[in-house]
Parts: sequence; C-alpha cells; structure tokens
Amino acid sequence: MNKIGIGILGAGVVGGSLIKRLIDDREVITTKTGLSLEVVKVAVRSMDKERSFSLPPAMLTADPMEVVNHPDVELVVEIMGGREPAGELVMAALRAGKPVVTANKELIATSGASLIAAAAEAGVQLLFEAAVGGGIPIVRPVSETLAGEPINRIVGIVNGTTNYILTRMSEHGATYDEALKEAQALGYAESDPTADVSGADAAAKAAILASLGFGTWVGLDQVHHEGIEAIDVADIRLVQERGYVVKLLAFAERLPGGLSVRVHPALVRSNHPLAAIRGATNAVLIEGSSVGELLFSGPGAGGGPTATAVLGDVIDAARTLGSGAESAPPIQLGKGSVVPFGDVETSWYIRTEVNDSPGVLARIAQLFGDNDVSIRSVWQEGRGERATLILITHPTDESSQRTAVAGLSELDVVTEVGAAIRVAFDE
Amino acid sequence: MNKIGIGILGAGVVGGSLIKRLIDDREVITTKTGLSLEVVKVAVRSMDKERSFSLPPAMLTADPMEVVNHPDVELVVEIMGGREPAGELVMAALRAGKPVVTANKELIATSGASLIAAAAEAGVQLLFEAAVGGGIPIVRPVSETLAGEPINRIVGIVNGTTNYILTRMSEHGATYDEALKEAQALGYAESDPTADVSGADAAAKAAILASLGFGTWVGLDQVHHEGIEAIDVADIRLVQERGYVVKLLAFAERLPGGLSVRVHPALVRSNHPLAAIRGATNAVLIEGSSVGELLFSGPGAGGGPTATAVLGDVIDAARTLGSGAESAPPIQLGKGSVVPFGDVETSWYIRTEVNDSPGVLARIAQLFGDNDVSIRSVWQEGRGERATLILITHPTDESSQRTAVAGLSELDVVTEVGAAIRVAFDE
Repeated sequence: MNKIGIGILGAGVVGGSLIKRLIDDREVITTKTGLSLEVVKVAVRSMDKERSFSLPPAMLTADPMEVVNHPDVELVVEIMGGREPAGELVMAALRAGKPVVTANKELIATSGASLIAAAAEAGVQLLFEAAVGGGIPIVRPVSETLAGEPINRIVGIVNGTTNYILTRMSEHGATYDEALKEAQALGYAESDPTADVSGADAAAKAAILASLGFGTWVGLDQVHHEGIEAIDVADIRLVQERGYVVKLLAFAERLPGGLSVRVHPALVRSNHPLAAIRGATNAVLIEGSSVGELLFSGPGAGGGPTATAVLGDVIDAARTLGSGAESAPPIQLGKGSVVPFGDVETSWYIRTEVNDSPGVLARIAQLFGDNDVSIRSVWQEGRGERATLILITHPTDESSQRTAVAGLSELDVVTEVGAAIRVAFDE
Repeated sequence: MNKIGIGILGAGVVGGSLIKRLIDDREVITTKTGLSLEVVKVAVRSMDKERSFSLPPAMLTADPMEVVNHPDVELVVEIMGGREPAGELVMAALRAGKPVVTANKELIATSGASLIAAAAEAGVQLLFEAAVGGGIPIVRPVSETLAGEPINRIVGIVNGTTNYILTRMSEHGATYDEALKEAQALGYAESDPTADVSGADAAAKAAILASLGFGTWVGLDQVHHEGIEAIDVADIRLVQERGYVVKLLAFAERLPGGLSVRVHPALVRSNHPLAAIRGATNAVLIEGSSVGELLFSGPGAGGGPTATAVLGDVIDAARTLGSGAESAPPIQLGKGSVVPFGDVETSWYIRTEVNDSPGVLARIAQLFGDNDVSIRSVWQEGRGERATLILITHPTDESSQRTAVAGLSELDVVTEVGAAIRVAFDE
C-alpha cells in the first residue's frame, strides 16, 4: 500500500471537514484507491481554538511554511484562501517538487498562469477542482474529458449566495434586503457580502472556466462583472408573469472576435434547465460543438461538498506520486484575446415609468431606432401618469444598448428608468 | 511536441466521427494539450465501403490484430463493440503494453475485472468514459473526483432509446409500438431494439457505475433488469394526473445488506430533476454522504458525443504516455456482495380492473395486509362492472409485493391486474 504524507494549510470549515474525512473515511479511501493518506502537519491561524477533529496538538502549527517544508509532507493542500500568503506558500511547495491541491479560486484566477507554469517546470501537479462549483466535478470534466472538444460556450450559476437570494425573491416575494438577511442568518452569505453579491466571486470562477475551456489564459482583471444589488423584486415579479426568471450568470463564450468572459444578472426562460436551479445550488452548462449541451449541477459550496472535491484531487495527486511517475504535463495555456465588453451582443429587458400620453411609444421607439437597437416586444402596465412600459430588445452590441437606455432618461415623457437587465436564454 | 501514434479498431458511426475529429480539430487539440495525435492504422469491417473521413487506403486494414501489433501504434482505441473479438484484441493490446480506450459497455461490464487487472499488471491505462452516458463525463467524475466520497446511491437514465419512447408516450399519448417505430425511424432505436427496450443496455451501464462508485466489482450477471415493453400508455396517463412520470432507471445503491444494482421502469415525481430529462437525453444522479446530490445530464449516445468522450480518454492516455510515466494504478476493485433482488425494498403502483361491489377494497386491503404490504394511497376511476382501482404501496421487500400482486388475480372481484410498476422518487 502506498503511504502518502499530507500537509494542510488552513483548518477552517473546509479544512476541518477534510481532516475528519481523512480520518473517518480512511477505510473507504484505502479500499477504493489502495492509498493510505496520512495527515502529517496542519497550519492553523490560532493554536488555542477548539477543533471539530482530533489530531495530536504537535501536528498543528501556526507557521504555514513549516508545513510546506516538513520532510514527511509529500503533498500540500491549501485551503486558507486569499491571495497572500497563500500564493507564496503554494509557489514554495511547487518549487520544492510537492504537488498542490487548492480550493482557492481567487488565487487561481489571478496567479494561475504563473503557478501552472511553476508546476509544469517542477513536473508536479497543481489541482483545483474545488475552486469552481464546490462539490460539482467541473474542472476535471472540462480540462480532461472535454480536452479535445471545441467548446462554444460555458454558462454557469456559480455563486450559491446570489442564487439563494434571487430564489427567495422569486418564490417568496422577498425584497433584496430581506433575502440577503435570510442568507446571512443561514450562513449562506458573509456579514460583508460584497464578494458574492457584486459578482466578484463568480468572476473568478468565470476566469478559471474560460481558461480551462478555451485553453487561453483569462485573468480575473479581464472579466467584466456586475452584481445583483440593484435587482428589484418588482422586476422579478413582472418577468415571472412573462415566463422568465432572473439569475446571476457567469459566461465564457467564444465569439467571432475573441472570447467574452463576464458575469451579470440575466433573464432566463422558465423552461430552460438553468431556471430550475434553485437555492444555493450551482450549475454549469457546457455547449460543445460535437457533444452538444451538458449540464452539471449540485452543491456549489459548504464544508462537506468542497472537502469532497479537495479530497478527489488529493487522491489523484497521491496516486500519481505513489506511482513514482512524473506528472503528465498540465493543460497548455496559449494566449487569446478577450472582446471588449461594449462589443458583446446582448438583449435587454428595460422597465421605464412613463407619463402615458399619445406618442410615448413612438418617441421611445425612435430613440432606440436611432441607436440601432430594435425592439422585440413591448408591454404596458397601468395607464395615465404612472404607467409602466416594458421593452425587450433584439440582440445588439452593449454600447448601443447602453446609449439607448441612457437616452431614455432624457425624454420628458419618461419619469424613471426603473431597470435594465440583460436577457440570456429566450427561446 | 509529443507525437503519439493511434490505432483504431472500428470505423462505424463513432469511429468515423473520431477520425474526422482527429483530423479536423488537430489544431484545437494541440493548442489545448501540446499533443500531436496521429492516426496510424484503422481496422474496418469492409475495405470497400465509402467513408465519411479521408485517410490513405493503406491506413485501412481488415485485420484488427494488425492494428494492435503495428509498431507505430502506441495507443489503441476499441470502438467495434460486442464481446469478441473486441475482448481478445483489447487484452492483446494491454499485454503488449499499449494503453486502450474503449466505448464498449458490454465488454467492460462482463470482462472489466480481468481487463483492469491486465492493465494494472502492464502499467498502462484502460479508459472507458464513453461506455456510460455517451458524451456526459461520468466515469471520470465518479472514479476520480469522488474517489474519496462514500457514495450512497447512483440513479440514472442511461438509455436514450427508452427515454425517448417514454417521453413520446407521455407527451404525445403515443402507444409503445408507435413510439418505438418513431424511435426506429429517427435512428434512436435499432431494427432489433431488444438490447435497449429490455433494459439490458442500461444493466451493463449500471454494473459499471456500481463498480466505480462502490469500489466493488459488479458483473452484468449480477444486475436484475426489466424493460419497458409492458408499459401501457394508459398507466402513463393515469400517473401523470397524479403528478408522476414513468422512467426506465438504473440503480446502484448501498443497502444495509450489501449493494443493489438493478434496472426497471419506475414512477418519478414530476418535480424531481430526473423527471425533466426528456427525449434521448441521459442523466445520472449521484448521492454522496458529504457532497449531497450531483446531477449530470447530456446526450447519452450518438457519434459526435460518444467520439468526444473517446477523444477525452485518448488525450488523457496520450498525455500519460507522452510524459514517459508509468500510469498511476487504476481504481482498486475489492469484492462485495449484491443483495438478492427479492430482498430490495420498493414501493409499487398497481392498477387492477375490478368489479366494483361493496367490500372490494376491504378484500384487496386484506390480501395486502396478509402479505405485510401496507397501502399508502388508493383511488378509483369509474364505477360498476368496469372500475379501475389504483394502489400505491409503502416500501416493502420485493418478494412480499410480488406475492401480494400475484394474489390479486386470484380474487374473484378482480377482472385483471393491469399494471404493476415500482415507484422510485415520491416526495
């Protein structure tokens, strides 16, 4: 049996769950894999904190570099999160010839290219299945099973917090603030929820999916992202009546001019598979040119699911180590261009409050026409001074849509531009 | 760049699609993987047939052993199907130290244990992602990503032909015979559809999923299977009114007494994710003890999707070869026991035609009670001599359920036992 020494950086929710699994499920793991995985050293932030796992105190250290450099640590698991010191520690482990498993999406989305290069140079593995979609196997399917597939598009619900909030707004009529408070009470959202609700967390995952799916390095700074903070429950209700739901979607798409990688809220037809992804569940839809549409869904976060993904990577790395082999070269990342966001073609749902007088629609239609935006459908709610006019446009470039929407507020018949949300799946 | 010589056994729909991809997508593959995959030799059944791909005639041969033994063939792809000569050829390739990629579910489900052992002994890979779920990445997620996860249950719709037929019956009121003819006309069903409609094809996939998921070898002969030939459109309509659909499901389940691996039609609640899998689409639901529920769906068959899965495996094997490494040891398969089908607990939907007279229900309830089967719900359609009584039972062992159902036809008030279908997801 192959015995592999493991060092773990971070013993929070995921780390604690992983350590418990390595102890409690030892037998299952050995039966399935023939490996004996031994926790050697664990770096913790506080030595005094009570832990959910039982390890001899001598196995804990407050100095993470001690874990990386420990002679019996053959494989390093980084689950402390954040860019630094995580980045420096991962780099040190790779340079020391130790494979690394990480769940750190932020680190991979920002420094992935240099870390992958360092791993290739050292001939060891850098695995990060848990960085996208939590417990859903998605990195390995995209980078291995679909390695030979020309992928057209990856679209995902990759942030559980925002999907939970939007689901509560949609199904229970909660306002954004109410739904956010609920998510915080349930532990789905942090006390500072900015990273989730602003789309930044999803943007890191979009960058990783794009890099793997298109074999082109896309950094986090190349991803345009918008959040759900401005979504009004009134719009969720209005679009629901017309057969749509609102989702925060991450897109990695191959367009004629290059890639488009972006995160924003979007209307999705109720009968589309992504519309059925409720609560904190995540899902990733992959459109390949030969394979067609694949959909993966499951829990996108949480200690247990994330630890499962980390453990799968640990076993993969340990198998490779145990075979005495140099690891196979990782995915190659060439250079590619990202299309400016203003050039991406999208459709919009626009809600305006208008003073309903004859000729209102003509003036609005004229404004959109002048900006080369054509209107696909219009409906009106109410009459008189407080009427609501709702438009859905045909796909046109972002810049034109934005100019048209900006022009709306200049019209004297328009009392307010209430909402402008893109439309993603409208069949 | 690593150049790898590939030999292909079989140039039918999948083989033709694979060869075209290796030629047309050469650039995508090289960009993403750094590999140059060269087709060296292809075994075909007929040398004269017109092909969808263009290869020099000298690269074709009618002798498959010539492909296996060709000195420039470093990796063998078996997509001819059937047990022999496929089994003998795969074994010869492995013994010659050449990794093998196969899409042959029948071969893996029957001879997988000895082939996996031969691959391990030779230190080369045997990969079969395409054998289950066509283009859906499922083998790799289960055997790698979830290698450390105690899996409770895998339930799948793994046969597109039967799912297409059941969808047509359900959504268009077609009879079984009409839907089968449509499936044949569209190329979803063979002229002899037995392997699909009898559940045998799904049983081979269930055996493979169980073996990978539980780390215990389960052979095809240990899988109980029933098909959809006896499903009456009348029952599909009746259960639809009560919020169910009928699906052919493959189960691999961990029960207290051992594993249960089986294929049979079953009622599924309309709001369950598997109920939404329509037409020829496949889906696999995995319930892990830590990860929760994962769902994978996509095209389960067809040349393009299957070739995508084969190509993913080819790239994996070529990467390992190209790195000069011995392959990591494959999944370990221990021994486990399969629970006799009669001991598995299931719920049933039972439709009986009765002569509606006072006391009918009491007599039927008595019969079920005598067999320790408790009835969960009853409803009746019609009155008088031709009434239909529908029962759904609570879960009890198969044997008791069957004895109770057999007893029904003995009752003089029962004119016919119209249907007995198990219930799988009823929440």
